[in-house]
Amino acid sequence: MPKFKHPDFTAPRFANARDARFEPAPADGVLPDGFFSTTNLPTYVRVNGRWLMPREPRMDAALVLNGQGELWAREGRRVNRGDRVAVGVREDGSEGIFVFAEAFLAHDPTALGGGEFRFMASDVSREKPIDYGVMARILIEERERGYPVWVCGPALVHSRARADMVWFIDNGFVGALLAGNAVAVHDIEASMYGTTLGMSGTGEATEGGHGLHMRAINRVRAAGSITQAVERGAVTNGIMHACVTRGVPFVLCGSIRDDGPLPDVYTDITAAQDAMRAHAVKATMAILIATALHAIATGNMLPAFVTEEDGALRELATICVDSSEFVVSKLKDRGTHQAFGVVTNAQDFMHILRLYVERELSARGLTKTAEIPAATWGAGGAR
Amino acid sequence: MPKFKHPDFTAPRFANARDARFEPAPADGVLPDGFFSTTNLPTYVRVNGRWLMPREPRMDAALVLNGQGELWAREGRRVNRGDRVAVGVREDGSEGIFVFAEAFLAHDPTALGGGEFRFMASDVSREKPIDYGVMARILIEERERGYPVWVCGPALVHSRARADMVWFIDNGFVGALLAGNAVAVHDIEASMYGTTLGMSGTGEATEGGHGLHMRAINRVRAAGSITQAVERGAVTNGIMHACVTRGVPFVLCGSIRDDGPLPDVYTDITAAQDAMRAHAVKATMAILIATALHAIATGNMLPAFVTEEDGALRELATICVDSSEFVVSKLKDRGTHQAFGVVTNAQDFMHILRLYVERELSARGLTKTAEIPAATWGAGGAR
Amino acid sequence: MPKFKHPDFTAPRFANARDARFEPAPADGVLPDGFFSTTNLPTYVRVNGRWLMPREPRMDAALVLNGQGELWAREGRRVNRGDRVAVGVREDGSEGIFVFAEAFLAHDPTALGGGEFRFMASDVSREKPIDYGVMARILIEERERGYPVWVCGPALVHSRARADMVWFIDNGFVGALLAGNAVAVHDIEASMYGTTLGMSGTGEATEGGHGLHMRAINRVRAAGSITQAVERGAVTNGIMHACVTRGVPFVLCGSIRDDGPLPDVYTDITAAQDAMRAHAVKATMAILIATALHAIATGNMLPAFVTEEDGALRELATICVDSSEFVVSKLKDRGTHQAFGVVTNAQDFMHILRLYVERELSARGLTKTAEIPAATWGAGGAR
Amino acid sequence: MPKFKHPDFTAPRFANARDARFEPAPADGVLPDGFFSTTNLPTYVRVNGRWLMPREPRMDAALVLNGQGELWAREGRRVNRGDRVAVGVREDGSEGIFVFAEAFLAHDPTALGGGEFRFMASDVSREKPIDYGVMARILIEERERGYPVWVCGPALVHSRARADMVWFIDNGFVGALLAGNAVAVHDIEASMYGTTLGMSGTGEATEGGHGLHMRAINRVRAAGSITQAVERGAVTNGIMHACVTRGVPFVLCGSIRDDGPLPDVYTDITAAQDAMRAHAVKATMAILIATALHAIATGNMLPAFVTEEDGALRELATICVDSSEFVVSKLKDRGTHQAFGVVTNAQDFMHILRLYVERELSARGLTKTAEIPAATWGAGGAR
Repeated sequence: MPKFKHPDFTAPRFANARDARFEPAPADGVLPDGFFSTTNLPTYVRVNGRWLMPREPRMDAALVLNGQGELWAREGRRVNRGDRVAVGVREDGSEGIFVFAEAFLAHDPTALGGGEFRFMASDVSREKPIDYGVMARILIEERERGYPVWVCGPALVHSRARADMVWFIDNGFVGALLAGNAVAVHDIEASMYGTTLGMSGTGEATEGGHGLHMRAINRVRAAGSITQAVERGAVTNGIMHACVTRGVPFVLCGSIRDDGPLPDVYTDITAAQDAMRAHAVKATMAILIATALHAIATGNMLPAFVTEEDGALRELATICVDSSEFVVSKLKDRGTHQAFGVVTNAQDFMHILRLYVERELSARGLTKTAEIPAATWGAGGAR
Repeated sequence: MPKFKHPDFTAPRFANARDARFEPAPADGVLPDGFFSTTNLPTYVRVNGRWLMPREPRMDAALVLNGQGELWAREGRRVNRGDRVAVGVREDGSEGIFVFAEAFLAHDPTALGGGEFRFMASDVSREKPIDYGVMARILIEERERGYPVWVCGPALVHSRARADMVWFIDNGFVGALLAGNAVAVHDIEASMYGTTLGMSGTGEATEGGHGLHMRAINRVRAAGSITQAVERGAVTNGIMHACVTRGVPFVLCGSIRDDGPLPDVYTDITAAQDAMRAHAVKATMAILIATALHAIATGNMLPAFVTEEDGALRELATICVDSSEFVVSKLKDRGTHQAFGVVTNAQDFMHILRLYVERELSARGLTKTAEIPAATWGAGGAR
Repeated sequence: MPKFKHPDFTAPRFANARDARFEPAPADGVLPDGFFSTTNLPTYVRVNGRWLMPREPRMDAALVLNGQGELWAREGRRVNRGDRVAVGVREDGSEGIFVFAEAFLAHDPTALGGGEFRFMASDVSREKPIDYGVMARILIEERERGYPVWVCGPALVHSRARADMVWFIDNGFVGALLAGNAVAVHDIEASMYGTTLGMSGTGEATEGGHGLHMRAINRVRAAGSITQAVERGAVTNGIMHACVTRGVPFVLCGSIRDDGPLPDVYTDITAAQDAMRAHAVKATMAILIATALHAIATGNMLPAFVTEEDGALRELATICVDSSEFVVSKLKDRGTHQAFGVVTNAQDFMHILRLYVERELSARGLTKTAEIPAATWGAGGAR
Repeated sequence: MPKFKHPDFTAPRFANARDARFEPAPADGVLPDGFFSTTNLPTYVRVNGRWLMPREPRMDAALVLNGQGELWAREGRRVNRGDRVAVGVREDGSEGIFVFAEAFLAHDPTALGGGEFRFMASDVSREKPIDYGVMARILIEERERGYPVWVCGPALVHSRARADMVWFIDNGFVGALLAGNAVAVHDIEASMYGTTLGMSGTGEATEGGHGLHMRAINRVRAAGSITQAVERGAVTNGIMHACVTRGVPFVLCGSIRDDGPLPDVYTDITAAQDAMRAHAVKATMAILIATALHAIATGNMLPAFVTEEDGALRELATICVDSSEFVVSKLKDRGTHQAFGVVTNAQDFMHILRLYVERELSARGLTKTAEIPAATWGAGGAR
């Protein structure tokens, strides 16, 4: 365990400090306005020119000076009317209270940037707010001037986010779609049979359901490609259908867990990387949803910045959505430090992001570039 | 490891079976329509009156009969044009193919109810769809005829779901609110300072932020109660404000991690249980959001059913929302089997649920019972 | 919400029931021995020949009959000395108490197999015990008679489980190792530089660390293959070194996030699947550690059973280790229902499994097939 | 999105820089030794006195200068023999390569302390190694000189960690045990019936199991207290039994989800806090296992430091064990920044920690203060 010495109170910064100020508690269990709220770090309070440490230190307490000149950390509820309570907000000694943060926080730079005692300092947390408004505005701007790359995992198709993804494609928000075989397989199974892995849009298992994704793959293999399956009417809705009919490029990268795979899938992963990279070098924004593998693959290929026409640099907006903090942290741990983490369900993310984009488009008087009917798949299955 | 004998193929159910049917693959890597898609269970195929097991069994494969009368499990991509592939969907032997599921699945009842090989059979999963439409309809019905009890954790206040919760209270959807000290503390900190645990509505830490929740508590303690703090104008918006002004009963149950606590908190947990139970006995619906402790406490107190006026029984709708499958499974593991799990972020859940309720109200021509302005707290802080 | 009618109490099974038995509480807050402990399901108690439902039903309560002949569900702590409390354990009506489980649990087969109110019924949970003794015995048996296939993710190398994995290879417990590029890259980085992704064995970042995995890959590419790198002395310890020196076959399957890749990696995923499958068809046990992708890929290829020499079938022991319930549930949701889930840290799993195997070998008087020195990498870095 | 200007290359630090050095690739797909490995940040390379940015920037690539004087970021596998590749390790411009890290990382202090591009920089991750050796040494030292406080959640009793916890109590490593009602209830159910929540030590549900914890509570209530139940022989093994017989103080804090509760439980949470705090003020080490609520409660009460006899300060060793990163991050987000997170299963943590403590005791020639038989509960149930 690291050890520390007390601060040197003969140093100039302390020499000019004044004694701490104390005020009486106005009632039992009630602290005076402006009371000093403790941290759990070593704390020194100047009383009659001497720097005292409180007894029984803890965070979220008040500092009470008793009649014997002893200083105690005390929970507010245990303070009695008239007790002398330290007041002040500054922790640098200038008001007679010094919190010795540097030494203790210095060796823990990631947790507490800036060497200050703080709450809610973690980088990625489901407890942090999600600003959909900002994301919607960035996405609309990147539709105008840039090339937003979407990278999606199959959870997007398992759930009803599929209809929302179609909406984003139809309305021009998708520069390119990077995904794996499973995304396309589930999406096409949904179009053909109204299920994903045999599960209906309401979450029920269907009879014989375990074979449906294999039947979907087989029909596309028979057609020769996804585009041909769309053209022949074998695939009539969904994400892949939208990409084909809207001319949005997609790259399907193979992985060893693939069933089939579909004929469009790059089975050689270096070829797949080259195909992805052709889009990554153009990307001005990346939206990574519900996929660790593809998100990290894309993050590896992306610069953290975009060079603007006038030569200025701006951060490449990178949004990573996952149900757990882990995937976002893992992405950052592999160098994609610029990723903004959204810890939520992919279905809900898509639904709310679309809502905010629609509102923002309305507010800007922008017409959507296309209209699509309400979700064609979901509770009722594909049609 | 459990051991099993082969089925007795002299039994009547097998005696009348016919030989399996085989059809040629129409092209390399393409299976005939109606191909049999394998499981990973012992499988027997009737060929010339004998029941053969395929070699190299695996799931998601086809069954190919070669020229030597051998049967192989083969991935579709490895099948050549003209190969003889088993066709059929039934797994009970009647079409000459029998999947020996019972023995293997019998000792694993939870995973595969009904003794059938299935995908997506798990009980709670972020991959399952969330039917907000159904939840909205139930909630509107329970507003009419019942008593929906909401049980909330502090994540609801950390994020912007706070404004949505206020909307549900204002519009009569909350029969009672059961929560802990932290929910009220964060909510009141947000009203007073625009922060929760010192974090702004956009997720930034604020200077001196670590003491703000203590200042909020102190001001309510000085006022005497939350109601008095509202009446004196010290709390001007938010969840507790809405409960007080709308007359919605709330129970704040203490826990050992509480700061303060606020004066309204039941510090004795048996008294808290009695206060909660007074609402649980009236509950006709329970919505448990982002809290393991309070959700399990409430689940323990709730019957799984409601007795209707005509004496019929209906299931007591119980929705449990959490970022991870674990809390929902834990709730079920403690007896609240009727809980429907929603694995998502609390903020997003509230936002979409409200959206669906608003749509459903519109569709039914129902006027909202109240109007509230757009989110009073969030990006901009409280005012 | 589903609705139900009350049971038909004129049915024979109820006709012969007797009245429930009641006994006085021996003290305030103390129930008589053998008290009936409630569930949250509709419950009927025979009192004077009539079947009554208790008021204010809940689980974990007692049933108290008051002086007015009313029946109440009451928490034990609220029962007073002398209160008449229902006793009995059976829930089928034969002792005068009937729990109406069927109707309510019928539509929830996965949660409560067997139609009985139960706690701890979930399939996969970190709260379930892990029987390392059983796993150790199976592993030793499969070393003798079978072909245990190990499928590992990179977490195994990030942490000190690397030394334990080497031990299992050295001692003959690994029939084949299936993994991805990252496992080999991290392992070889550890051998060459004492780091993984630039993190030391004690979790510290090292200067220039972000490039070390690229340097490791480059050196193996320069050597031509992992085997040649071992032979030239460029790789002197670790998992890949052990595979090469012990002649244990390995298959490294490429994925799109691969750096490099190493020259041994199958970059074509259908070729990779074929290579994996050559081991899967021989597998008699599968140990899947800290990898969703490879675990599902392997699960897809494995039958759920092994055919013994005498033709009998036994379950193919499949152990899936992950930090979260999600991966195990996902694997089961994709058909590998036989998987036994262990929710823990991969490093700790390896360490304890090895310990139990060592103990079991001792108990059986088996000599280890090899001796290795204590962990060659970990706190101290590679040597 | 934040915007940045290019560095000012007329500044002195750049004026003296030399041109970057390039070396030919020795073979196709093989880079020269000492190649510069890219990050995803803006990078400038000095070529003929001019600072060029590479085209198609990405991380983990090499920098190749082609015949036209253009600089490209290229994956190693795409480099051809003879290509001119930049070499160097320093990123500060002194070797002609400058990585513009400050601007981009400045506003992201938590992710990348020190303004350097790094991998594995996150604070809490299951991918980080766990140093049981260090923890064992600290624990042994604190047994000698200090007061280790253990704070445990019920997962410790659900699993076989119970026997290990008894070992730590018996051997003097537990200064005080702080827990909730559930820990004691499960532990005593295990002693009386061999189950926890009706689940056997091997994870099987038992008939009538859902009532067993209520029967256990009732028997202790009848005895009057846990101590009396131990003295009367109603509780014959386990954690609470060890505390009673070894004289280790315990504090059981009530919560609203409590069944019963047991007679020893503090039902008033302010009284519970005062009882906990009496131990917190003496604590020199804290071990927080599998409990968010109690861990945060304890963290709130603990200083981050211990004052030694000579007046020096040392960090108060605080270990937080949980299955997910979330609990540890939450604890840190509430001010307990000094917590060292161990992301693993509680059962495995206990088992390995004990193993390392036993080894360290042996190495130091210390006799254990007590001997206990092998696990008295687990596979075989209580005896």
